[in-house]
Amino acid sequence: MVNVAIIGATGYGGVELIRLLHAHPKVRLSHLTSETYAGRRVSDVYPHLSGLDLALEKLDPQAAGESDFALLAVPAGVAMKVVPDLLQAGTRIVDVSPDFRLRDPSLYSHWYKQSHACPELLKETAFGIPEWNRDAIESARLVAAPGCYTTAALLALSPLVREALLETDDIIADGKTGLSGAGRTSLTLPYHFPEADEDAAAYGVGGHRHMPEMVQELARLTTSDVRLTFTPHLIPMSRGIILTIYARPKAGAGPGELRDCLAHYYEEEPFVHVLPEATWPHTKWATGTNNCFLAVGIDEATGRAILVSVLDNLGKGYAGQMVQCLNRMIGVEESCGLSLPAAYP
Amino acid sequence: MVNVAIIGATGYGGVELIRLLHAHPKVRLSHLTSETYAGRRVSDVYPHLSGLDLALEKLDPQAAGESDFALLAVPAGVAMKVVPDLLQAGTRIVDVSPDFRLRDPSLYSHWYKQSHACPELLKETAFGIPEWNRDAIESARLVAAPGCYTTAALLALSPLVREALLETDDIIADGKTGLSGAGRTSLTLPYHFPEADEDAAAYGVGGHRHMPEMVQELARLTTSDVRLTFTPHLIPMSRGIILTIYARPKAGAGPGELRDCLAHYYEEEPFVHVLPEATWPHTKWATGTNNCFLAVGIDEATGRAILVSVLDNLGKGYAGQMVQCLNRMIGVEESCGLSLPAAYP
Amino acid sequence: MVNVAIIGATGYGGVELIRLLHAHPKVRLSHLTSETYAGRRVSDVYPHLSGLDLALEKLDPQAAGESDFALLAVPAGVAMKVVPDLLQAGTRIVDVSPDFRLRDPSLYSHWYKQSHACPELLKETAFGIPEWNRDAIESARLVAAPGCYTTAALLALSPLVREALLETDDIIADGKTGLSGAGRTSLTLPYHFPEADEDAAAYGVGGHRHMPEMVQELARLTTSDVRLTFTPHLIPMSRGIILTIYARPKAGAGPGELRDCLAHYYEEEPFVHVLPEATWPHTKWATGTNNCFLAVGIDEATGRAILVSVLDNLGKGYAGQMVQCLNRMIGVEESCGLSLPAAYP
Amino acid sequence: MVNVAIIGATGYGGVELIRLLHAHPKVRLSHLTSETYAGRRVSDVYPHLSGLDLALEKLDPQAAGESDFALLAVPAGVAMKVVPDLLQAGTRIVDVSPDFRLRDPSLYSHWYKQSHACPELLKETAFGIPEWNRDAIESARLVAAPGCYTTAALLALSPLVREALLETDDIIADGKTGLSGAGRTSLTLPYHFPEADEDAAAYGVGGHRHMPEMVQELARLTTSDVRLTFTPHLIPMSRGIILTIYARPKAGAGPGELRDCLAHYYEEEPFVHVLPEATWPHTKWATGTNNCFLAVGIDEATGRAILVSVLDNLGKGYAGQMVQCLNRMIGVEESCGLSLPAAYP
Repeated sequence: MVNVAIIGATGYGGVELIRLLHAHPKVRLSHLTSETYAGRRVSDVYPHLSGLDLALEKLDPQAAGESDFALLAVPAGVAMKVVPDLLQAGTRIVDVSPDFRLRDPSLYSHWYKQSHACPELLKETAFGIPEWNRDAIESARLVAAPGCYTTAALLALSPLVREALLETDDIIADGKTGLSGAGRTSLTLPYHFPEADEDAAAYGVGGHRHMPEMVQELARLTTSDVRLTFTPHLIPMSRGIILTIYARPKAGAGPGELRDCLAHYYEEEPFVHVLPEATWPHTKWATGTNNCFLAVGIDEATGRAILVSVLDNLGKGYAGQMVQCLNRMIGVEESCGLSLPAAYP
Repeated sequence: MVNVAIIGATGYGGVELIRLLHAHPKVRLSHLTSETYAGRRVSDVYPHLSGLDLALEKLDPQAAGESDFALLAVPAGVAMKVVPDLLQAGTRIVDVSPDFRLRDPSLYSHWYKQSHACPELLKETAFGIPEWNRDAIESARLVAAPGCYTTAALLALSPLVREALLETDDIIADGKTGLSGAGRTSLTLPYHFPEADEDAAAYGVGGHRHMPEMVQELARLTTSDVRLTFTPHLIPMSRGIILTIYARPKAGAGPGELRDCLAHYYEEEPFVHVLPEATWPHTKWATGTNNCFLAVGIDEATGRAILVSVLDNLGKGYAGQMVQCLNRMIGVEESCGLSLPAAYP
Repeated sequence: MVNVAIIGATGYGGVELIRLLHAHPKVRLSHLTSETYAGRRVSDVYPHLSGLDLALEKLDPQAAGESDFALLAVPAGVAMKVVPDLLQAGTRIVDVSPDFRLRDPSLYSHWYKQSHACPELLKETAFGIPEWNRDAIESARLVAAPGCYTTAALLALSPLVREALLETDDIIADGKTGLSGAGRTSLTLPYHFPEADEDAAAYGVGGHRHMPEMVQELARLTTSDVRLTFTPHLIPMSRGIILTIYARPKAGAGPGELRDCLAHYYEEEPFVHVLPEATWPHTKWATGTNNCFLAVGIDEATGRAILVSVLDNLGKGYAGQMVQCLNRMIGVEESCGLSLPAAYP
Repeated sequence: MVNVAIIGATGYGGVELIRLLHAHPKVRLSHLTSETYAGRRVSDVYPHLSGLDLALEKLDPQAAGESDFALLAVPAGVAMKVVPDLLQAGTRIVDVSPDFRLRDPSLYSHWYKQSHACPELLKETAFGIPEWNRDAIESARLVAAPGCYTTAALLALSPLVREALLETDDIIADGKTGLSGAGRTSLTLPYHFPEADEDAAAYGVGGHRHMPEMVQELARLTTSDVRLTFTPHLIPMSRGIILTIYARPKAGAGPGELRDCLAHYYEEEPFVHVLPEATWPHTKWATGTNNCFLAVGIDEATGRAILVSVLDNLGKGYAGQMVQCLNRMIGVEESCGLSLPAAYP
């Protein structure tokens, strides 16, 4: 058994971590922190957890540092202030904020409008997609879990970019997401039920923060220039992401070749499912799970490859991914505690 | 390990049973039957289960009878045709259809417009609410699991009726349910997305089939006359039931006394959660789980007691309940395989 | 043409008033007030109105007093501060806040936790249900439009109470409403999309502010004691209310008699539709309109009458009702500008 | 007053036509046909129209031919069997089926798997987007109204293609639509509430029937080759379409130039609204109306132009468009009967 702290335990990501970990056979939840609800019980904030007797406390890096692992589910700018102390105390970290995802600190200051507090740690950070960085994660002190959109994009594109089956200079990724991605505390108009219900809209058009993460990781797999347009949309559901990607295949690469490449790469992966021809995934298939579903085809008219990638933004796109990384760091099966399929419908 | 057959494995209830049982530590899924999809894999019908390698077959009572247990998730009128053969073969049964819920076969023919095929079995049937019939279920050959509304009503009312804290001759139960209760094959207008979305309506007004089940079970707890008006409504969500019950408290019974009674009865129950004063449950708290949340208060103006009971119609109101019964019959902890809380939100 | 001011023009009720009145053949919108957005255009706040060139200003009772009519769509406690000045200036008013609905100022202070600023005006206020107070509204200086739930309850119950077809001492009204009723500025957790979506819950249990309005108006129609339990629920949709009412019929009153009574009362009414036997209304039928649909039946088991009343909380339950009152005050057809049926689905 | 027949009056498009036309000042509804419900009243099928006294009859081209105009809201393959007789009788037609949209009958047989019944009529058909074919529509005997996606695409792209501000050989259009587009009678699994709710998925990937219509109309505006990838998605709402289009701007064309071009073209149009910089449209803005909202920007990373086009699939994308065409053919203001803005929210 290892001791695990959840830093930011009362956000939607935090409570999903509690759900996945409270019954995990190798984990003991040692600290649950919440700046807003410190001193109360988890079940005061989330009555659906009234069966669990868990206390919330203020973040004290000293205290949290006594844990073997810390899972950071905090906003951008907060993680980088806490991470050095935790590492100092010997605690290994999975951080799902954007603070440690971009290797180049100048990119961080460009996109997040603040300079990085500990750029020296960026070099040693492992990028938290186990399917692609298993070994680095296993031994890392600090893992930066990418968010939902980046994970959806990289799982779909990485094999095809690495095998040079796609042109990389004109990739278009059109995303649609449920509204839980905004978190529990963003009580603003776009997430007000009467506004969001029966509505769809684009946001962050022409330059979204997740784009540079996608480009950074794809660029490691190819010597070609990588350029990518990413447009997210809000659609009226709570959980789920569907990312539709358009990219030109390299000369000669047909739909079968693209599908075979994906299937080959993910053959042994428990969480990445490559669908047969003419089957296109539904977000609901992944709800509440760590699964990702991929499909690929070629457009008749333009010859563009069309990739569809589906996952749960709070599952494989957040808490599930963090637990998968944690499992690898602990040295147990990556799927430990993550194997229940979606409750359908 | 026991062998368990799921009869009717591709309905929404069936697939929820698969989800709960495929990883159950004491269960081996021995037969999954589907009249429509026999010969195919479960993942052909439900691609979100593509990680599971499970075959579907036609129902053959002979074959199914080789299993230790059979869970019947079939429509009214089908179960009673299959049950005798299965029992004959020594298979113990949990049936969630209405076929064995009503002890009086004349009530069955009145409400279901057909005569009962094996009325002699009604006497030995255990009513499948473990919180109230634990011992009978443990040794039963045949358990009749009540559906969602009946379970929601009985968990709320049974303690108060047994302790004579409520008048029983004028109970009103107003239910609101998500649309998965209709099942996967009822492709009719009321469940067509554009009709049901952004809509609410009552149905079965003035005489719903679940009412006599509620009355039958309450009548066992009191010598008073039990009369109950039950009006269900469809509301635009997939899962979840909220039942709001209005009943006159017996002279002297205040809100504290009612709440204490519920709390006392369910103190040791892992799945029934009695909420503190002024906390009213949300259906989302129970989604995907075997939990039921109860709250009670007294109306200022009329003195009526108001009870609110919440559960997931496919969880505690269907598959979760069946697994809980099965656990009891097998002789393992009732909560085995059922302890994951809701994925929230 | 009359000059009409909308006080509180940028809430959901205000913008619905703009929609209904900007093309009204007898109305010129003279002032649109908004404390938050004064100085901007309506289309800055609601881009879907970009075809309309309408300016927003701060409320200045002097200026608004130049209008012939003022429609007040402001929160409780605000209207009573503005009304005296407007009346003084000769402006006639339809107010949809609760400030002038309760004739007894002590009830107001009990339910709204503040004393009434101008109790002397309560006597002359007309209660804004034209179907029941047509003459009073026609000549009134001040009309208090009841909100959505009260209108739904009174349209259903008033004929039956007046004709003494129902017992009035034990009426139960179970309401379910969409979330737009909370308004545009209540950016709180219960209306946050991920919380409210796929969820249903009761609120205000055991004593909701709208109950005394219902009782007050019913008591005017009978010499019997009126007691009523009202429990509202939030369900995941934007617009629409369905109110299910349970009341004991007087001896001898069968379902046909109840239905005939309703049908007789509303025979000539353009907005109140009494449905034939065994047809139960859907909230979607009323969406975006000033219509109300009523149905009635008798429960087999208990003999209770069950009434279902459906309307749009922003239509007949708010802005539509205000315009209907305004039409009556102006002296045009009540249906002027209100005749478009629902956009379905 | 002109006599107008609605052929296919009980589908979602048909009932929207009834809503728009029953109060139209220049139109008398002369025939409403329905193969399923002939002999009944409209209000039997749609009780929300219980105020309207309208009868349904079987389609008899003879009878319908007595009308001045016929609006055809029937499936592919049906319209072309009816149109010749109606034209013969002197009735002018607006058809919203795909039967007369494609000028090349071989394209029709390719995409709709049947040969065209009256290819000789294709030459004289006017394409029903008034903003682009006003004069042809005015004098046409037969207008082919394009569906929702095609209208959304053409309103956004036509100005920019005609002014040669975009490269036309690699356009990507990613669409998201509500579920009413499938109609009322498609009671199939993808539109079953529990399946579609909380779900998003692509369909018709790699070759959707609406693509060739888009290409055909754009090709008329340019001498360049037009190639377009179109991928539609179903998202959980009833009404509304958002189409996100990615196209390379011609050298030198910046975002201001693109926006100015759109604004210039639609300056005088009552229904097409070009949004200012950094404002992106929501589908809800168009719900229930004949409005279309357009926005354009340039992606920082790739230089791609991003266009977003929003409309109501049953409004400007179906019935609203048909009425707009009809108005032009009658010779009244195009906006006659279409000016009410969206009921929001």
